[in-house]
Amino acid sequence: MDFIKKPMAIETKSFEIIDDIIKDEGLSYPVEEPLYKAIYQRAIHTSADFDYLDNLKIDADFIRKFEDALTRPVTIYTDTNMALSGINKAAFKKIPWSLECLISHDLTAQMAKKQGVTRSMAAVQIALQTPGKKVFVIGNAPTAIFQLLESSKEQLEDVIGVIGIPVGFVGAAESKALLHEHSMPSIVALGRKGGSNVAAAIVNALLYQLVGRGV
Amino acid sequence: MDFIKKPMAIETKSFEIIDDIIKDEGLSYPVEEPLYKAIYQRAIHTSADFDYLDNLKIDADFIRKFEDALTRPVTIYTDTNMALSGINKAAFKKIPWSLECLISHDLTAQMAKKQGVTRSMAAVQIALQTPGKKVFVIGNAPTAIFQLLESSKEQLEDVIGVIGIPVGFVGAAESKALLHEHSMPSIVALGRKGGSNVAAAIVNALLYQLVGRGV
Repeated sequence: MDFIKKPMAIETKSFEIIDDIIKDEGLSYPVEEPLYKAIYQRAIHTSADFDYLDNLKIDADFIRKFEDALTRPVTIYTDTNMALSGINKAAFKKIPWSLECLISHDLTAQMAKKQGVTRSMAAVQIALQTPGKKVFVIGNAPTAIFQLLESSKEQLEDVIGVIGIPVGFVGAAESKALLHEHSMPSIVALGRKGGSNVAAAIVNALLYQLVGRGV
Repeated sequence: MDFIKKPMAIETKSFEIIDDIIKDEGLSYPVEEPLYKAIYQRAIHTSADFDYLDNLKIDADFIRKFEDALTRPVTIYTDTNMALSGINKAAFKKIPWSLECLISHDLTAQMAKKQGVTRSMAAVQIALQTPGKKVFVIGNAPTAIFQLLESSKEQLEDVIGVIGIPVGFVGAAESKALLHEHSMPSIVALGRKGGSNVAAAIVNALLYQLVGRGV
């Protein structure tokens, strides 16, 4: 069988095909600026779904704050271990950022049980109570977004932004619509579609463009 | 804000909405049998994409062999850590199965470099050389499927089946079409769509239905 065996060649070819399809089908990137385009491309690359050209809304404010924070310590909190797994770790050798997923921690389970809320909500509460600048990456749990939206301005003071991409049929579209309208800087995928893979892909697009690919 | 905070209630409601949409839009499950239906439901639940009703092809032979193997030691090899993360671990307390992802192992990187192939291909080679029954769960790498298709009948002797769901624009559709036609028992998502999340969701559907949900 004859097929491409080089990962970078596969990726380059994929992006060319995505661009060709967008041109052939009369679609277009909402923003042509390279960083934005990279985010759209990588969301499509990881899902094979061109709906993200319409669905994905990128606040200029999110991009600005994310970029400004790269030289300072920041923790990225993901709502799932899957999103955490999907984020390429190479960039974290070059910037003082760290990655954390609290969903499986004992304290999270205890707090969720005590309050009668989801573990995703408890994880957001714990993250907000932890000192330091933070970015939330939410690929699965609308309740995590609802928790953020219910938090006070003071509690959200250290939140640089939220990548809100939960997928699903209960609360996902509603939570993302509200997040999109909220003053918190965000990247959201409106509607039902999304997922941990797309959330991770967006983080990777940002880090590859702003920090570099690393080895 | 008023929203459902109980994970099982969210899931039950999600499945009801999926069924309602399928009915309202004049769609249908290709197979109504509960195990098959659960696989379709969970693929849609994790992607919010009803294309899987058409794309997802489930070999009866895969289901039979998977179920028959539940009492014996089997290793599930995933092609990504993301797919591994997405698989619910509760079932593995009840059956003598284990989960493994070789993609980040040193030996895999060494073998890939030496042969000039992808790490996904090297990981499949190592898995095939490891004694014991196995199931492959491939959510990302068409090259992993090509590697399986290039293997001899003898090398594939211990392969119970392949869940082949890579997503993408280079090789994904081709690899899945070939796998679907191959004599190896498989579940595939034809076309470009798929991903580690959908691959993991299919494993979860199988294990929840056949082994139980656990705690």
